Amino acid sequence: MVIMFVVLAAAAIALGYALFNYKSVKGMDEGNARMSEIAAAIREGANAFINYEYRIIFIVAGIVAVVFGIIFSFEEGTFRWEPSAAFVLGTSMSALAGYIGMKIATYANVRVSNTARLTLKIGSTLKVALKGGSVMGLCVGGFALLGLFLVYVIFGFGMGYLNMDSIETTGSIFTQCLSCYALGCSIVAMFNRVGGGIYTKAADMGADLVGKTEAHIPEDDPRNPATIADNVGDNVGDVAGLGSDLLESYVGAITSSIILAVSLFMHASIESGLIAKDMLEKMVFYPLVFASIGLVASVIGIAYVLFKKESDNPHRDLNMSTWAAAAITVIGGFIITGSFFKGADFTGTGFSLGYLSPWIAASIGVVSGVVIGAIAEYYTSDAYAPTRKIAHASVDGPALTVTEGLATGMISCMAPLIVLGIAIYASYAVSGMYGLAMAAIGMLSFVSATVSVDTYGPISDNAGGIAEMSRLDPEVRHITDKLDSVGNTTAAIGKGFAIGSASLAALSLMVSYLYAFSPSGSLDLNFTDPLILAGALVGAALPYLFSGMLIEAVSKAAQKMVEEVRRQFREMPGILTGQDKPDYKTCITISSQGAIKEMKTPALISILFPLVSGFLFGPYFVGGLLIGATVSAIMLAIFTGNAGGAWDNAKKYIEAGGVEGHFKGSAAHDAAVVGDTVGDPLKDTVGPSLDILIKIMSTVSLIAAVLFSQYNLLGWISTLIH
Amino acid sequence: MVIMFVVLAAAAIALGYALFNYKSVKGMDEGNARMSEIAAAIREGANAFINYEYRIIFIVAGIVAVVFGIIFSFEEGTFRWEPSAAFVLGTSMSALAGYIGMKIATYANVRVSNTARLTLKIGSTLKVALKGGSVMGLCVGGFALLGLFLVYVIFGFGMGYLNMDSIETTGSIFTQCLSCYALGCSIVAMFNRVGGGIYTKAADMGADLVGKTEAHIPEDDPRNPATIADNVGDNVGDVAGLGSDLLESYVGAITSSIILAVSLFMHASIESGLIAKDMLEKMVFYPLVFASIGLVASVIGIAYVLFKKESDNPHRDLNMSTWAAAAITVIGGFIITGSFFKGADFTGTGFSLGYLSPWIAASIGVVSGVVIGAIAEYYTSDAYAPTRKIAHASVDGPALTVTEGLATGMISCMAPLIVLGIAIYASYAVSGMYGLAMAAIGMLSFVSATVSVDTYGPISDNAGGIAEMSRLDPEVRHITDKLDSVGNTTAAIGKGFAIGSASLAALSLMVSYLYAFSPSGSLDLNFTDPLILAGALVGAALPYLFSGMLIEAVSKAAQKMVEEVRRQFREMPGILTGQDKPDYKTCITISSQGAIKEMKTPALISILFPLVSGFLFGPYFVGGLLIGATVSAIMLAIFTGNAGGAWDNAKKYIEAGGVEGHFKGSAAHDAAVVGDTVGDPLKDTVGPSLDILIKIMSTVSLIAAVLFSQYNLLGWISTLIH
Repeated sequence: MVIMFVVLAAAAIALGYALFNYKSVKGMDEGNARMSEIAAAIREGANAFINYEYRIIFIVAGIVAVVFGIIFSFEEGTFRWEPSAAFVLGTSMSALAGYIGMKIATYANVRVSNTARLTLKIGSTLKVALKGGSVMGLCVGGFALLGLFLVYVIFGFGMGYLNMDSIETTGSIFTQCLSCYALGCSIVAMFNRVGGGIYTKAADMGADLVGKTEAHIPEDDPRNPATIADNVGDNVGDVAGLGSDLLESYVGAITSSIILAVSLFMHASIESGLIAKDMLEKMVFYPLVFASIGLVASVIGIAYVLFKKESDNPHRDLNMSTWAAAAITVIGGFIITGSFFKGADFTGTGFSLGYLSPWIAASIGVVSGVVIGAIAEYYTSDAYAPTRKIAHASVDGPALTVTEGLATGMISCMAPLIVLGIAIYASYAVSGMYGLAMAAIGMLSFVSATVSVDTYGPISDNAGGIAEMSRLDPEVRHITDKLDSVGNTTAAIGKGFAIGSASLAALSLMVSYLYAFSPSGSLDLNFTDPLILAGALVGAALPYLFSGMLIEAVSKAAQKMVEEVRRQFREMPGILTGQDKPDYKTCITISSQGAIKEMKTPALISILFPLVSGFLFGPYFVGGLLIGATVSAIMLAIFTGNAGGAWDNAKKYIEAGGVEGHFKGSAAHDAAVVGDTVGDPLKDTVGPSLDILIKIMSTVSLIAAVLFSQYNLLGWISTLIH
Repeated sequence: MVIMFVVLAAAAIALGYALFNYKSVKGMDEGNARMSEIAAAIREGANAFINYEYRIIFIVAGIVAVVFGIIFSFEEGTFRWEPSAAFVLGTSMSALAGYIGMKIATYANVRVSNTARLTLKIGSTLKVALKGGSVMGLCVGGFALLGLFLVYVIFGFGMGYLNMDSIETTGSIFTQCLSCYALGCSIVAMFNRVGGGIYTKAADMGADLVGKTEAHIPEDDPRNPATIADNVGDNVGDVAGLGSDLLESYVGAITSSIILAVSLFMHASIESGLIAKDMLEKMVFYPLVFASIGLVASVIGIAYVLFKKESDNPHRDLNMSTWAAAAITVIGGFIITGSFFKGADFTGTGFSLGYLSPWIAASIGVVSGVVIGAIAEYYTSDAYAPTRKIAHASVDGPALTVTEGLATGMISCMAPLIVLGIAIYASYAVSGMYGLAMAAIGMLSFVSATVSVDTYGPISDNAGGIAEMSRLDPEVRHITDKLDSVGNTTAAIGKGFAIGSASLAALSLMVSYLYAFSPSGSLDLNFTDPLILAGALVGAALPYLFSGMLIEAVSKAAQKMVEEVRRQFREMPGILTGQDKPDYKTCITISSQGAIKEMKTPALISILFPLVSGFLFGPYFVGGLLIGATVSAIMLAIFTGNAGGAWDNAKKYIEAGGVEGHFKGSAAHDAAVVGDTVGDPLKDTVGPSLDILIKIMSTVSLIAAVLFSQYNLLGWISTLIH
């Protein structure tokens, strides 16, 4: 199909622009020797961790690929290497994006401090930070589409599995390749998010618990032995982790809609012509087209802010790039969808509003994503009542800070879920189940813009750390702090997009899952069936178990960090007076080892739990499990994300003098720091990992669906009895 | 039916024994004048609150009864007073049980302290406390069954709605009466639990936040102005609240199974003879029979411990009464079920193991209730690793205490949900959907024994408070402390029963709900329907919203209390030196007003949310809403209950010297107190209210189901379009 060149072109534009920005950032000056030295230490720590982590991913991915090869070959009675290859392709794309994005972040941080130092202007500093962040953002969109292009070209056209005339026999191989590609991205995301999340929060909590609370030294003070580890953590967790997380969401949304279209296609073929053939073909390619439009729109949005005149309102500039990308996506989508679908035969598709139906569904996704983001901003920004209430409660001690934050997080679940409910119903009403998948794509179509903005946050945070550790002019720190605080709000908005799209993608994967083992095409998942009900209950408990384990992992690693920092302060009293240099390396090692050790179990759970229960209790139990887990994970993700964000900003609100008579260092501030510390693992480790969890579970189940229905213990027992 | 005399006899035995214990406790001596004075103050505060609260319940119940009368009369075109009357009966039974149980608790508390003072023996003190608690326990079972007896006699036989020959026309009136009876109990429970929960936790947190943390005076110190309010709170929240909560669960479980049986009955009649008529008749009466067995078994279990030789192991004695009641229920059930169902025709019932099938299902309920209780004990008792881990984490500050507690609570969800999943599948496999309802009854059949043991806890807690305030010998306080700490564990076990049975009851109400508006009898609740899916998502957010609002309510009231206590300490410095007497009354007023003011919104939400969404989006949306809310509420209830219990006991563990080098008053203990304070509203306000929430929602929806399907906006719009 000629349309694939559009996809390739979009990917090439994005990756080309990323390369340009990479070179442009790296070509800048690092500043004085002290700054270079600190930046090198952070870079070294980040590289060491990601190299070690990638080695583990490499091993796990290798095992999974071999297992897939054996299973699929065994199942189909012929050597079937394609799904494994697609899986490896997925891991490579995701790993590459994370690696490159993180690499440039460790160059950009010090250049941001240096720009602030030289210009003392917020506008020029913002541009460097955003340019650094844009590499991650553009790599996410570019590599994701490049990989999908390769899947289509190699397996779809090259191997002929997307041949429209034999789709009923080869379609399932093609969807398997797509699922495995998505799973490859998911697994890297899981390791990067969980590993990076544990790393960064162990370091952060460790640094705060002793540094801020006990020794009362400011954040990023060079006397704190955990401070370099904390800055390394920003890069491995908030940059690489976030990037591969959203790449995974993006790929998940796109593949789930393609898989759904192919499934519809196969069923239509089986039932001979329920939907017109050329219409189905269009539906298989449309998700890629829409994603390409979004990617080009993101390039324009980012470029606009980077090339336009400097301003001193970073919040507006950043929003501008996102909203511009969103608007261009919607408008571009309107134009292209029109010519793409015009004149097609819509019989049986459920497209109730003609050829614009899928565009409307995608636009519903765009709008609801924006609304969910705005709701997240309301609950987490200190410009509004909820966060201020937490700040004021801190006056009465840490217990009330925590209590108020929990309450805010819980209450914040309702509004986004109503939006999501409306989006589901409306997009379905417009375009059937395909509309649901398109809404997910819409929400994520301009992901490159949002990730660029999200990545800019940790880069600015790091820049502030370097400024503090190099004892630069306080004005420099003031500039980076301002950039960082804007980053907090954009991060909360980004999380809204991530969880919203993840739930839509998981739900449409669900439908493909049901198609996979029910050849009659009846999509029955009846909750009065006790097996499905039991599955839903156990499934709902799974995100809780997973979250609890992640929190324990962080807190275990943080406790070790606390002990180490205390030990150094005790054994080398010269550190606090500034005479001795703290031992940064040991702290980095503690975070690394803790992360590597603790990330394995939760990652394995997400893969093995649906597999084991499928082979024990069959596909319907797993169907319940997936729904239960999805519903419960959405709630927990919103609850933890918003509570954590609100605590963080409540603390910042007190620091900014928002609560009269209580400033930095007061008892109220100490209480707010407790809230912030409690929120750290919730918002940066648990919340973001939950949307990966539900998508890995759905994808794994989808891949194994046929096997579940053929081989399961419960079915075997019941044939034995009867 | 002659079987109704068995029910009446069981109720009479329980209420008679309650009366005996009431008189026996009240006849004991109160001790010295100071003790009498304090006890009178507590009693006065409790009475004032419950009188005021009951006035509000009276008004709300009156309005609901009138509305019901109008709606039902309008719907059926004839004056229909019966459901309203049944509703009022339900409120009366629940209100009476709560009132009597609380009344005797405010007499028993001081008599427990006096017994400890006079005998200095833990065995005799335990007996007084348990005797006091048994009044609440026996009233729960007794009044619940008495009310059900009246519903059967008045509406079933008297009005003839349970006439087996005209069941297809009158059956729905009878189930409406049953639902309304259950709703009456639920509404009182909601007010008592929520109002009492806010009252007690506002006082408790207020007392702790200033008293323990700032002024460093011990718990229950008479110098703390909030201390009387704190003790009043134990009575209105932990006694009256708990009693009407479990009465509601008990009634909910019984009525849901009867309603299900009648629904089956009506469908079988419509489809002419799917299940044999005499079999269906038995199924309608069996739940009452099994409940009666459990009630008599509970009387025996309690009496055994009260009459047996004194021991010095209160934990074993209390467990003995519960386990004895459980064992007698199972054995008695076996004997009576045999003769009850023997020879009946099981065609179409789904009873796969013959006439013992429903007994097996109920026994599955008993066993899984016990296992869920044991799991709760594991996660919350300081004898095991999870709670100890929290205690040790407290050494590194309050943030890690809170973090570890959250992790423990989250992890603790999986095991009970697996048990619940197995119980659902197994009881269904044995006896169909009826089995699910019977499992819920099994779990709660010996509720009178568990409530007696649960109520003993707050009575002992109060006794300790009175001992402290009357400056009795520390040995007295030592005895009551020991009793209180055992009470903590039994409370956690009781919560396991409550949420387990609530979820089973809600699920079987769900089935009756589906029956109610789908006359074809197809119980379809398909999750690939976007309307149901949207309902489930919004439903899942509802318990979060509800919980968040409750926490906010508590924290708002607690903040007021903190200000008041601080004011008194500031304006009357003589209080802390013991020269001035603090102003207890104002604190009591603050708790009362806070509770009354804050309980209305959450209570109304639970009634109005399903109603409004039903009239907007129709019965299928509400079906999704109920499932989503149930699944999400179970998780939150277990999470909050276990996290709260674990924090409480982690603090006690440090006080008992479990963490070497850290004792009462140390920084680690202060951190643990923060955890305990955070957990207080979670475990005593939020958790227990959640199971009432899901049952009120299910019951209200069941009552309005037919209306939803006749009148809803979405349906109206769609007929308008087509």
